Amino acid sequence: MAETGARKIRLGMVGGGSGAFIGAVHRIVARIDGDYDLVAGAFSSRAEISRASGAAIGLDPARVYGSYDEMARAEAGRPDGIEAVAIVTPNHLHAGPARAFLEAGIHVICDKPLTATLAEAEALAKVEPRNGAKFLLTHNYTGFPLIRQARKMVADGLLGTLRMVNVEYAQDWLTKPVESKQAEWRLDPARSGAGGAIGDIGTHAYNLMRFVVGQKPEALAADLAALVPGRVLDDNVNILLRFAGGARGMLWASQVAPGNENGLRLRIYGDRAGLDWSQEDPNRLHYTPFGEPRQILTRGGPMAGVGGAAPGTGVRVPSGHPEGYLEAFATLYAEFAAVIRGDTEPADRLPSLADGLEGVRFIDTAVRSSQSDSRWLPL
Amino acid sequence: MAETGARKIRLGMVGGGSGAFIGAVHRIVARIDGDYDLVAGAFSSRAEISRASGAAIGLDPARVYGSYDEMARAEAGRPDGIEAVAIVTPNHLHAGPARAFLEAGIHVICDKPLTATLAEAEALAKVEPRNGAKFLLTHNYTGFPLIRQARKMVADGLLGTLRMVNVEYAQDWLTKPVESKQAEWRLDPARSGAGGAIGDIGTHAYNLMRFVVGQKPEALAADLAALVPGRVLDDNVNILLRFAGGARGMLWASQVAPGNENGLRLRIYGDRAGLDWSQEDPNRLHYTPFGEPRQILTRGGPMAGVGGAAPGTGVRVPSGHPEGYLEAFATLYAEFAAVIRGDTEPADRLPSLADGLEGVRFIDTAVRSSQSDSRWLPL
Amino acid sequence: MAETGARKIRLGMVGGGSGAFIGAVHRIVARIDGDYDLVAGAFSSRAEISRASGAAIGLDPARVYGSYDEMARAEAGRPDGIEAVAIVTPNHLHAGPARAFLEAGIHVICDKPLTATLAEAEALAKVEPRNGAKFLLTHNYTGFPLIRQARKMVADGLLGTLRMVNVEYAQDWLTKPVESKQAEWRLDPARSGAGGAIGDIGTHAYNLMRFVVGQKPEALAADLAALVPGRVLDDNVNILLRFAGGARGMLWASQVAPGNENGLRLRIYGDRAGLDWSQEDPNRLHYTPFGEPRQILTRGGPMAGVGGAAPGTGVRVPSGHPEGYLEAFATLYAEFAAVIRGDTEPADRLPSLADGLEGVRFIDTAVRSSQSDSRWLPL
Amino acid sequence: MAETGARKIRLGMVGGGSGAFIGAVHRIVARIDGDYDLVAGAFSSRAEISRASGAAIGLDPARVYGSYDEMARAEAGRPDGIEAVAIVTPNHLHAGPARAFLEAGIHVICDKPLTATLAEAEALAKVEPRNGAKFLLTHNYTGFPLIRQARKMVADGLLGTLRMVNVEYAQDWLTKPVESKQAEWRLDPARSGAGGAIGDIGTHAYNLMRFVVGQKPEALAADLAALVPGRVLDDNVNILLRFAGGARGMLWASQVAPGNENGLRLRIYGDRAGLDWSQEDPNRLHYTPFGEPRQILTRGGPMAGVGGAAPGTGVRVPSGHPEGYLEAFATLYAEFAAVIRGDTEPADRLPSLADGLEGVRFIDTAVRSSQSDSRWLPL
Repeated sequence: MAETGARKIRLGMVGGGSGAFIGAVHRIVARIDGDYDLVAGAFSSRAEISRASGAAIGLDPARVYGSYDEMARAEAGRPDGIEAVAIVTPNHLHAGPARAFLEAGIHVICDKPLTATLAEAEALAKVEPRNGAKFLLTHNYTGFPLIRQARKMVADGLLGTLRMVNVEYAQDWLTKPVESKQAEWRLDPARSGAGGAIGDIGTHAYNLMRFVVGQKPEALAADLAALVPGRVLDDNVNILLRFAGGARGMLWASQVAPGNENGLRLRIYGDRAGLDWSQEDPNRLHYTPFGEPRQILTRGGPMAGVGGAAPGTGVRVPSGHPEGYLEAFATLYAEFAAVIRGDTEPADRLPSLADGLEGVRFIDTAVRSSQSDSRWLPL
Repeated sequence: MAETGARKIRLGMVGGGSGAFIGAVHRIVARIDGDYDLVAGAFSSRAEISRASGAAIGLDPARVYGSYDEMARAEAGRPDGIEAVAIVTPNHLHAGPARAFLEAGIHVICDKPLTATLAEAEALAKVEPRNGAKFLLTHNYTGFPLIRQARKMVADGLLGTLRMVNVEYAQDWLTKPVESKQAEWRLDPARSGAGGAIGDIGTHAYNLMRFVVGQKPEALAADLAALVPGRVLDDNVNILLRFAGGARGMLWASQVAPGNENGLRLRIYGDRAGLDWSQEDPNRLHYTPFGEPRQILTRGGPMAGVGGAAPGTGVRVPSGHPEGYLEAFATLYAEFAAVIRGDTEPADRLPSLADGLEGVRFIDTAVRSSQSDSRWLPL
Repeated sequence: MAETGARKIRLGMVGGGSGAFIGAVHRIVARIDGDYDLVAGAFSSRAEISRASGAAIGLDPARVYGSYDEMARAEAGRPDGIEAVAIVTPNHLHAGPARAFLEAGIHVICDKPLTATLAEAEALAKVEPRNGAKFLLTHNYTGFPLIRQARKMVADGLLGTLRMVNVEYAQDWLTKPVESKQAEWRLDPARSGAGGAIGDIGTHAYNLMRFVVGQKPEALAADLAALVPGRVLDDNVNILLRFAGGARGMLWASQVAPGNENGLRLRIYGDRAGLDWSQEDPNRLHYTPFGEPRQILTRGGPMAGVGGAAPGTGVRVPSGHPEGYLEAFATLYAEFAAVIRGDTEPADRLPSLADGLEGVRFIDTAVRSSQSDSRWLPL
Repeated sequence: MAETGARKIRLGMVGGGSGAFIGAVHRIVARIDGDYDLVAGAFSSRAEISRASGAAIGLDPARVYGSYDEMARAEAGRPDGIEAVAIVTPNHLHAGPARAFLEAGIHVICDKPLTATLAEAEALAKVEPRNGAKFLLTHNYTGFPLIRQARKMVADGLLGTLRMVNVEYAQDWLTKPVESKQAEWRLDPARSGAGGAIGDIGTHAYNLMRFVVGQKPEALAADLAALVPGRVLDDNVNILLRFAGGARGMLWASQVAPGNENGLRLRIYGDRAGLDWSQEDPNRLHYTPFGEPRQILTRGGPMAGVGGAAPGTGVRVPSGHPEGYLEAFATLYAEFAAVIRGDTEPADRLPSLADGLEGVRFIDTAVRSSQSDSRWLPL
């Protein structure tokens, strides 16, 4: 049952076998608004693990596959085959299945970053989907209602001319050398790509900033560091940004900052006002028109003074009842369902394959800048 | 698909037709962990509204009923009949369906307060369920992980001897005379019962406090007021509490306090430590052992220093990714599913019919105390 | 040197010998704006302690006295005698010196509560000061700029009709039986009077509320408790309030609430807006007009939208540079200096002998209500 | 009267005529603990303004001078001449008087930055003071008790090996072109030097970070911008930092960030713990040992678990009564008084002439890096 009454979309999953964090998240958020029915999966490249995972969540064994290729072929050939697939594998295993399903005419929901390498991303961006298959990149933080409100306020000119952006994403879970399944592939260049923290959370920070300010920075100067002894990939990312028109920015991402859990914060300043939002307190947006008191806008609260509520900030529960990470994520799934069903409106605000390519280019540029002593490089 | 792989439980719903707030919430939270499948409903006492609501969410018309009685009879007689029912009607329409389904051997999930009158509650408490049908009262705030952690810490003696409890639930949505569907029945004694704010949110505050401190107050002295001109039922509730052993308490509930959305806050003080938790910031619990710095415990964060994590604080996403109102609510549904399937462990922490009776007794006692010039009355 | 260039006022002190907390505070705040010169003192009723204290702070030994009587007589007779005196003794030693100095024509700055008993307070209120000697009661929290702003906003009608007030003052320093000099006299009825926490901090809470809302409650119902075993005076105070016109209130004061240092907080709700202020974060005032976003007013920040800055909110440093407890306290001293010099304007907002009498009446009424099972008593 | 009982130190002032902000601040903080007596001044280079300012604050006209040279000569020759002088002029007028008074054997208290140019700073650093005259640079934020606590915790190894420092100082008062006396000289290279925001607040941020981490960064890469059209000096400062041993840092200073008043914040991360402190909430220090809950240390509160209270964190009022900007500033004055009187202990933590030289070098290096496209330059 979809809360809207619309027919459920048949969904498959690539990756997300037992022990995977993000696969379970995708399954929950696919259920929240009732738009999807998970009916098939290739949960692991090891067939027995895939089978066990499929059984654990009650799928028909005939629709649990040992590889994504097999799954794309088989499902495309069934009258009741999946209409969309969620790709929740490590970064280096995004491009292959994304191509396969798009070319099979199956809509793709893909975790970020788009790919592990820029070459893969550029190739993927050239794929011609069959039957108009659509693509959603799950930069889930763009689903937070107040992030969309912030984006509208910037677009409406409430901040005036952009001057400075400060975005940060601080965590601490990699402070010590760790050996969890979550940590392992993220720290391995073969599976993560050339970026560590920059790929895992730096792209989120970049995308969130990009989504709200509505313009791409012109250039960056980066200083990436692997601060934990023995680590190969960066775990701390310090970046300077420059925008057309002279605005400046800073981006900090760290996985070794004790006391931070998921400290994603975005601050934007124009010549008329400033905005301040934090993922750990997502139901409040601080807005200060210059020369006036700070205002705390709340999800679902009054927006009359700021030009009304932004599209896509519809909420499930009233203001003051916190919605969180899962609801924001679910909003992407729900809106992608609407796009699949033919409603083009939400497509404007959903992270696309082009956004994914820009994200991988951001990683690539930052890594190169850092390797050349933080030289400014165009984005 | 339940995330656990268990078979889905067939669910029905009484109330929750279009425009209802809490019905939609129950439907979302029943989906989050994948344990239920909504297959039948009596969404309104007006048959055409019930039919339209059922159609909107895609139910088989044969299982959309015009009355709960008809539904209980019909579903109890089907081999694929519902196993559980969610009752999400106004207060005066809880007792009837609760009795009907329990006596039909169907598990009941019922919104709070239990009933509109003490007589109804006492009668309901005496019902003998068929086939061991179970009862869950959705005091949803008890599902917040850190509330359960707080309860364990109190039970483990970390706070020492209880001295003072301060609980409050402040809202502002009834500051002006309003005419929404949500407001209308809550302000009508015929449908709400003798309590206004005390029944709607005062019981939540009482229950939350009761859940965490683990003991019933001995007596209360109440001053209930209808502060908006023309209003019949209380919209502001001031209560003093006394506990066995001499501890004291205060309970404040208001729906006319501008600047408060859902300001449910609980503070507990013993001779060894204090706790402080707020629903609008639910992923943090402030804990101060006397003579030591304040600690901020986070959902899913380190609990080694406080005797380990409490049962039932399992989390869907890592610490720092906020979970909110819907997740806490969903935890009650998920744990009740486990109880239905035969796992008795979660039953200890799930709000029961006895809790519901105590809550209605609390309302009744407070109303009587207020009517007798705030005289202390035993609870 | 006074920052204003005005001549310094010659000040004496009664009490405040070595080890006293509040005496040192009075000396600091008398210096901050440069309006006073401490030249005489009776720092202790034990002559040798008084002498040692006077020597430690460099006073002329001829002007260090063994009793306040002697001091009042001697100083009144000197051409360069003190013009004002600060009385910083325990409560039971306020009335005597206050009377002596007022009758000697010397201005009095007196710590709160006014006296230890209602009889003393009533008698003191009838004293006829010589030569127009003035009286200042140091309810220091009224000196916070944003408290004065709040008072003006209430008086200007920005909150509309008053409906509910919630004031609290929570501390934890008396959680354990303690034996410090600070604690000792406060816990002794002979020196504190009939109230413990209610006299020490409850009166501050009451006065702060009273100062901002601008009206006296009509009645109260109190439940005072001595929660630490063996304690005679109350350490936890729970009070319900009723105002003319139907508004309600709650007052909580506790010295046994672990995790609270000086948690004085005032929340006021009318039918148009709400206010929220905390002493531990005194440079921010939360203001929410109903149906609009919450605004954070800052000390020295923009006030155009709320009718302009209140008188007496002049600040020493720009907004964003926190001023604290000492600055608010010093503002009372500085404004009393202006009153002494003949400027009558600040007198309107300075706590007076009448406020002191009302405060002692509040204590007395609360103690009596508590002794009669929390019966409502008129104030 | 000094609270300690010590004799007052005779103080002069250079600059600080009517309308000056920082001069009044210095006068207040010199009074707070009673250690100084202001007896002479050259308040303006225009003699009539100096005279008027001196008269306004009640000084003997014979000791109000038209130039600092004249003042240094005259006061050095008086038996009751000043022992110390506060220099509170714009940056380009620091070096001259500092040299004159040091060479006259008079202790110098000088506002920051040390000088307007590196050449001046280097020359000043070579001055040989007569009679052991001492020098205090008023980097006032180092006087905050919890900043000193943080410094001790870093020095004691509680954070482990330093990895990342994030310091920022955001204001908004220069968002629009402004013409106040405060703004005017700060925006004029002739009086401020080559740095705008970097000299005014960037040096504070740098110094605070430097004070707490206890080591100088090895290199910086800077991007300074004048974001307000028509402005010559930078109003936004973005800097990357590198430390010996591989630690990284970011420094952001802005005077055009609407919604920020004095948003000075310092975050430090090591391999064992993290610290977080904000000037606008200065009585709390967040400390998170990795793998444990966040702790909120309070000024004057329990420090047993973190190795005890740091020296120089003595407090005037108990924890929970906020101390602010003026108290922290006053602590520098009080401790410098102790140094003048011969107690060498506080000298270790008081900002020195060497710190001032390092600060000017930091400005100079950042300006040069920014001019060479953010090239890394050694510090």
